[in-house]
This record gives sequence, C-alpha cells and structure tokens, in this order.
Amino acid sequence: MAAINGAPKSKATTYAARLKTGRALALDVWSIFNQANLPADCINLGQGYMNFPPPQWVTDAASEALSTVAANHYSHPRGRVRLREAIKNYYEPLLARPLDPNSEILVSSGANEGQYSVFTAFLNPGDEVIMFEPFFDQYLPSVTFNGGTPVYVPLHPPPAAQAKTTSNDWTIDFDELRRSITPRCKMIILNTPHNPVGKVFTRTELEGIAALAEEFDLMVMSDEVYESLVFDGKEHVRFATLPRMWERTVTVGSAGKMFAATGWRVGWLIGPESIIGPTLAAQTRIVFCTNSPLQEAAAAGLEQAAARNYFATEVADYAERRQIIVDAFDSLGLKYTLPEGTYFILLDISDFDLPEGYPYPETVAGRGRDFKFGWVMAQEVGVSAIPVSEFYCEEHGNIGEKFIRFAFCKDVGTLRQAAVKLAGLKKLLKKNRA
Amino acid sequence: MAAINGAPKSKATTYAARLKTGRALALDVWSIFNQANLPADCINLGQGYMNFPPPQWVTDAASEALSTVAANHYSHPRGRVRLREAIKNYYEPLLARPLDPNSEILVSSGANEGQYSVFTAFLNPGDEVIMFEPFFDQYLPSVTFNGGTPVYVPLHPPPAAQAKTTSNDWTIDFDELRRSITPRCKMIILNTPHNPVGKVFTRTELEGIAALAEEFDLMVMSDEVYESLVFDGKEHVRFATLPRMWERTVTVGSAGKMFAATGWRVGWLIGPESIIGPTLAAQTRIVFCTNSPLQEAAAAGLEQAAARNYFATEVADYAERRQIIVDAFDSLGLKYTLPEGTYFILLDISDFDLPEGYPYPETVAGRGRDFKFGWVMAQEVGVSAIPVSEFYCEEHGNIGEKFIRFAFCKDVGTLRQAAVKLAGLKKLLKKNRA
Ligand SMILES: Cc1ncc(COP(=O)(O)O)c(C=O)c1O
Ligand SMILES: Cc1ncc(COP(=O)(O)O)c(C=O)c1O
Repeated sequence: MAAINGAPKSKATTYAARLKTGRALALDVWSIFNQANLPADCINLGQGYMNFPPPQWVTDAASEALSTVAANHYSHPRGRVRLREAIKNYYEPLLARPLDPNSEILVSSGANEGQYSVFTAFLNPGDEVIMFEPFFDQYLPSVTFNGGTPVYVPLHPPPAAQAKTTSNDWTIDFDELRRSITPRCKMIILNTPHNPVGKVFTRTELEGIAALAEEFDLMVMSDEVYESLVFDGKEHVRFATLPRMWERTVTVGSAGKMFAATGWRVGWLIGPESIIGPTLAAQTRIVFCTNSPLQEAAAAGLEQAAARNYFATEVADYAERRQIIVDAFDSLGLKYTLPEGTYFILLDISDFDLPEGYPYPETVAGRGRDFKFGWVMAQEVGVSAIPVSEFYCEEHGNIGEKFIRFAFCKDVGTLRQAAVKLAGLKKLLKKNRA
Repeated sequence: MAAINGAPKSKATTYAARLKTGRALALDVWSIFNQANLPADCINLGQGYMNFPPPQWVTDAASEALSTVAANHYSHPRGRVRLREAIKNYYEPLLARPLDPNSEILVSSGANEGQYSVFTAFLNPGDEVIMFEPFFDQYLPSVTFNGGTPVYVPLHPPPAAQAKTTSNDWTIDFDELRRSITPRCKMIILNTPHNPVGKVFTRTELEGIAALAEEFDLMVMSDEVYESLVFDGKEHVRFATLPRMWERTVTVGSAGKMFAATGWRVGWLIGPESIIGPTLAAQTRIVFCTNSPLQEAAAAGLEQAAARNYFATEVADYAERRQIIVDAFDSLGLKYTLPEGTYFILLDISDFDLPEGYPYPETVAGRGRDFKFGWVMAQEVGVSAIPVSEFYCEEHGNIGEKFIRFAFCKDVGTLRQAAVKLAGLKKLLKKNRA
C-alpha cells in the first residue's frame, strides 16, 4: 500500500537526498533576504526585478489585447502566431539564419519554464549536465527534479591582488572543463551575459566550449536572457551562430528581462526542430500554453523596439544605473567586478570585517561569510544584496563566499539613496586595510 | 557518450513506449479537428474555449494592474497575496473550514500546471493513478511524464435502450473501482463537474470513493474547475468537505473557467500543507511563479463576484446556451446526455450511418467511428465537435466511440447558427430508425 498516512509522502526528501547536501532543506536565500525580514527602510538591491514598470507602449499593447476575444483565450502551445512572427523577425538577423516559426521557435511561460521543459524532454536519470559556477540558482533543482546530475565547473575569479577587475577577468579553465565531461554528460548550460558575474563570454571562450560540445556530442542550452543588456559596446556572441552549433543548441530568451516585465512570465526557446519538437511535447503537458494577453504585448515590444530605439536607450539607462553603484564603491576604494552585461554587480567582501558576537538569526548563523556579511549590511548599512555562495555547489561555496551580488535594476532615485547608504560600508572595512 | 548525433535523443519515444499504445504518436484530436483543417464556415463546437471575452470589470482589473509597478513583476511563488486572500474568502464558506493562505493555497499557471506540479511532487516511478474514463485528456500524459502509471476505471454510460438520459445516468461500478486498486496505487483523480460527461457526482458516489481512499490510504485530486457551472439547482459536493477527506485531498480550481479567460493561465490548488508544501517546491522549479497582472484580475473577479451576482448570472447564461443545443437535438429526436454541469454535451451517435466510401484524410481513416462521424459532420453539416474515444484508453475506446462532444461555451448567436446547421444531421440518420 502506498503509505501516505494522512501526510502524503512526497518526493521532496528523495530530491534533497539526491542533491547530496542538506542545503536543499535550508531556507533559500530569497526567503532569508526578504523585505519582510529586513529593516523597514532597507533598500532592496537583492532580487533581480525592477522597481519601475515596463514601457507604457508595451503595457498599452497588453491592455489592447485584453479588449479582444481571442487574446483572452488559449493560445497555441507553441505560442501565439503574432509573437512567433515577431521573434522570427527579431532574431533572424541576430542568428544570421532563417527561422521557421512553426518548428524552431517555442514560446514558454518565462525563460524558466522553457528551460525546465527542455530538461523534462531530454534528461534521463543519471544524465550529467555541466553548469558553470556561479550559476542561476534555478538550474540546480530544475536539473535534479528531472533526474539529471549537475556537474559544476567554476568560473575562476581574478587573483585577489588585482586592483581593477571586470567580468572578463572571470575565466574558464578549459582543462578542468574537459576533465569534467564524462560519458554520462549530455548537456552544457551556458549563460551569457552571465548572472551573477555580468560576464559576456568572448568568441574565443565560446569557440572553446563549442569544440568540446562537438567532440563529446553534447547539447548546449545557451541562456541569453540578458542579451539586450550589454555595456560599453562589447559584442554579445550568440552561441548558436558558431559553426555547426545550431543543430545542438537551444537559445533561451525572456520578455521579462527585455521589457522590465519579470511578472509577465513570457519567454522563448529558439533551436532546431529536433530540440523544439520534444520540448513542445513536454511543455504542452506542463503548462499547455502561455498566457495570451502578455504574449501579444511581448510581440508588440519586439515589433516596435527598433523603431523606438528601445534597446539602445535601455542600455544607456542601465549604464547610468551601474555607474551610480560603481561610484559608490570607488569612493570607498572597494574591490568589485565591473559587469560587461546584465544588471548585477559583485562586490568583493574580503576587505570587510564581520563584527564580533553579532546576533544573527538562526537561518544565517550556520551559513557562509557572505550570508553573514549580507545580514550585517542590511541591518547596519540599510542596503540588502544576495550572498554569492548560494550560486555555488556546497563543495565550491568557499569561492562564492567572497562576494555579494547587488542588482541595479532599480530607478536612479533609489540607486542614489542606496549609494548614500553604502557610504556606511566604511565602518565595516578592516582596520588594517591600506 | 550520450549520443545525440546532431538530433538530440529525447525521452519522447520512451514516453510513447510507456503508454503502451501507438496513439501517443498519432496526431492529437485538437490538431485534427482544428479550424485550419475544416471547412471555412464550419462552426467550431470542438475545443472548450469561449468565443466571448471575460467580463469587462475583470479585464478592467487586469488593465489597472498593468498600470502599477509591482503587478508587472515577479509574484511570490505561492501566488500574490491579494489573490490568495480572495481565494481564502471565497472558499472558506464553501469548504466549511478556515484556510491558511500561507500554507493551504497555491496559485498555479492554470489548473493544468497546478495538477502537473502535484504529479511531479508526489509520483514515484510506477505509482498508479486511477482516472475515471472518459477523462480530461491531459491527465494521461501528465501522469506518465512524471513516471506514474494510469489505471482506467470507466464511468458506465446508460443502457442504449434508455430514451432520456442525463449525466447522472453515467455510473461508477464500485466493485470494479475496488478491484482496480493495487498496492501500487497512490492517487485517484476525480473530476466533478465532469468533462466531457457533464456529470456532477452525487454525495453518495463521492462517499463511496472516500471510503476507498481511506481504506487504501490514497491521495485524491479533486478537479473541480467547472465548480461554478452547475445547472438546475443540482448540488455540487466538494470532495474535501467529506469527513476525514481534507487531509488527503487537493482541490483544483481555474480562473480561466470561472471568468471566461482560458488564456490567462491562472488556477489554484487548495489542500493541507502536507500536499501544498511539496507541490510548491515542484512548482517553484517548474514555472517559478504565475503571471502577476492576471492574478490581480482573478482576485478582483473572486472579490466582486458575489456583489455582482456573477456566478448565478453565468449559470443562467450557460443554461440558455445548453437549451439551444438541446432543442436542436430534441427536434431530431436524437439521443444525448443532458449535462448537469460544465459546458459540454455528449451526443450518442449510434443512430447515425457513416456514408460509404467517404474520403477521410489519413489522420482520421485509422481512428474510431466517432472520429469518422466527427469528420463527416464537420464537412457535411458544418459543425465540428470532438470524438469521445480520445478521452478513453485504447482498450476502452469502444465505449467512447459511441459519443461525440459539443462545447456550448459560445455566444447565443453562434449557437443558434449551429442549431440551424445541426438540422442537417437528419440526412445522416439511419434509414431504418424508428
Ligand atoms: C540567467 C537567468 N536565466 C533565466 C532566468 C529566468 O527568466 P524568466 O523570469 O523569464 O523565467 C533568470 C531570471 O533571473 C536568469 O537570471
Ligand atoms: C477537467 C479539466 N481540468 C483542468 C483543465 C485545465 O484548466 P486550465 O485551463 O485552468 O489549465 C481543463 C480544461 O479544459 C479541464 O477540462
């Protein structure tokens, strides 16, 4: 008898065991650094969502869709025709190939669900999936929930002695990457521009990954949800454009990131029919289809972006936001990683002291130095950020523990206030620091 | 080496094999009876979505949400506070118990995704799940995708000789149900009001199921997405209100069905923390959260429904729609199942002849009598409906083959036109019919 005894037996415990770490049972970082647990006037630079709305012309398109009949009802599981056409037209020049909206494009309920559906369609129990650390925290459980085994390959931070560092200084050790590929390896997850490092992978780096993908016959999930947020004229190379990579690559996009609408849950996958077909089969079971009115709005966004010079303006806005935080760090002489893309910036916290005997809550007390620093900063400085060890497996948590992630997807006023508060970091700096 | 050879190897073939039927590879019914394949002026009473919009006051709430900041960004994975409060207030009297919005309510991306997440959280490979035939077609693949094994228990149609039948005449053979419960059985899926039969399960029937659930320690998924569509004053008994059933029951609801907004993808699960907790863990990985603006709209819907007498008006509207189809059938003396709930009606097609040598497309030629009848009706009568064998496992398809399902969730004008066309069914009736 399937013994559920009132409290039904779930697989959650099985999964936790499979992670080989108790962390799955620890409170997740988002719950710990939740506004509700922090001082009332604490400025939240933790979670990566905007404190401003999507552009008016995009929300107008949503309202317009709501006034029709069809856009309030089920969409085709592949996505609405208008949005697939808009994706086709937007990406064809960027991917330098024709795209078939009926077989090579799949609208998903956020990038997240699209990625989950790929795992559901392709992972068999024990299949290994390589992810670079630090990684977007959903990858790990999404892979394990689908029976896959994550294999972690760290991006190596610049040497501590280096004064000025950019996200380009975080590097792949290609020998290490090669050694991590076993006969069970099925897929590499790549994320460029990278959350949380801000790294925009160079063509040479991507070619190195492509060579291994080809040699070991691997699928590549190229998570490019921050594609529109690349600074200083740096080139964003799309993995699927590398020679022979189209056939094994699924590219991931997100309307939420592009149009400051993280709550719309509209994303997309682009790839060959051999990947999109099975993923559609999985997604059709999982969500059936994505919400219709906001698909129409996302379509309007892609359709009109060029004429409105939207993405260039957006990058300029984010560059200004980044500068406010950078100036705050520079004025204290802090070490940080200047991001080439995304809206995240990593602060190196090695130069700070943790106050002795500080009263940490239970959820923080047992965690790494970055969790403790994040807690103290929220309480004493009034700005919250996210400890980076959360984006590493337990074994490599010591690398992440040196950093804390700030999200600068906030309006200029809020960031200026945060900058003023961040001056208070001075009192936490090591006394014996130069 | 995980051989993907350009075309990545997906699990789709594995799943198809697991279904032990080639049908998984056959074209699904929705694609066959798609408007694109039917005569241009064919009236679509096939798929269950409305050809009218949600109420204006509900879409207005969506537009209002779009004009804020927070309702365009990520929601809590459990669902927005406002919507969980609205669900609590709406269901507390109906479930006759207090509900904790922080542990007993989970907003999902449509009922469908909520149900999928329950399967992900609770099914281990080989766990058996009982579903009554005919069943909502997503159940089967959603269970098998999560490693479960469907076990089919037919609802028995009324005897052919019976003249007037209602959905109440479709019955459970409780001995058969008991025999179908093996030691591997973990869950029963119940659907009341029932798609496609329209059956509203009686208290006695539900008590019979409850007794078995208790005896064999089973979880019960009570899919009540059509809860607001019950006709003729029939009582809709909520399974979770039966003695001792709360602890093992998850109740499924859908804003799409309630507010004529199938494309909004907002649904919910209500149940004990022991079910909601693990399901939240699964759902957080699968979709992270549900789209925010339409959660606000669904909340407005539940908040204002009583004051606007919305559900009573909706039932009256649907009763009128049902009557139009019923009158069309009656005027030809056809046999059908009068539905006590939902917006579906089953026509018994035993009294019809299939024209000889009819040119069926390949996708229909190899299928059951109901597929062929549906095809002929669409071509010759100009109304499309859905063959009911699609809602049965292959072994029991012969029961479903006797029926075809009409959806009357269409405006009165469209249904009147359909009624006129349905008079054309006369020419397909058996010549030797009384
Ligand atoms: C790297 C990365 N991938 C995917 C996602 C998920 O995007 P969406 O909100 O469209 O699901 C995020 C969100 O933070 C992300 O940072
Ligand atoms: C019985 C039943 N359950 C669940 C669903 C799915 O509802 P939703 O559109 O909210 O995902 C449907 C939709 O047709 C249904 O008929």
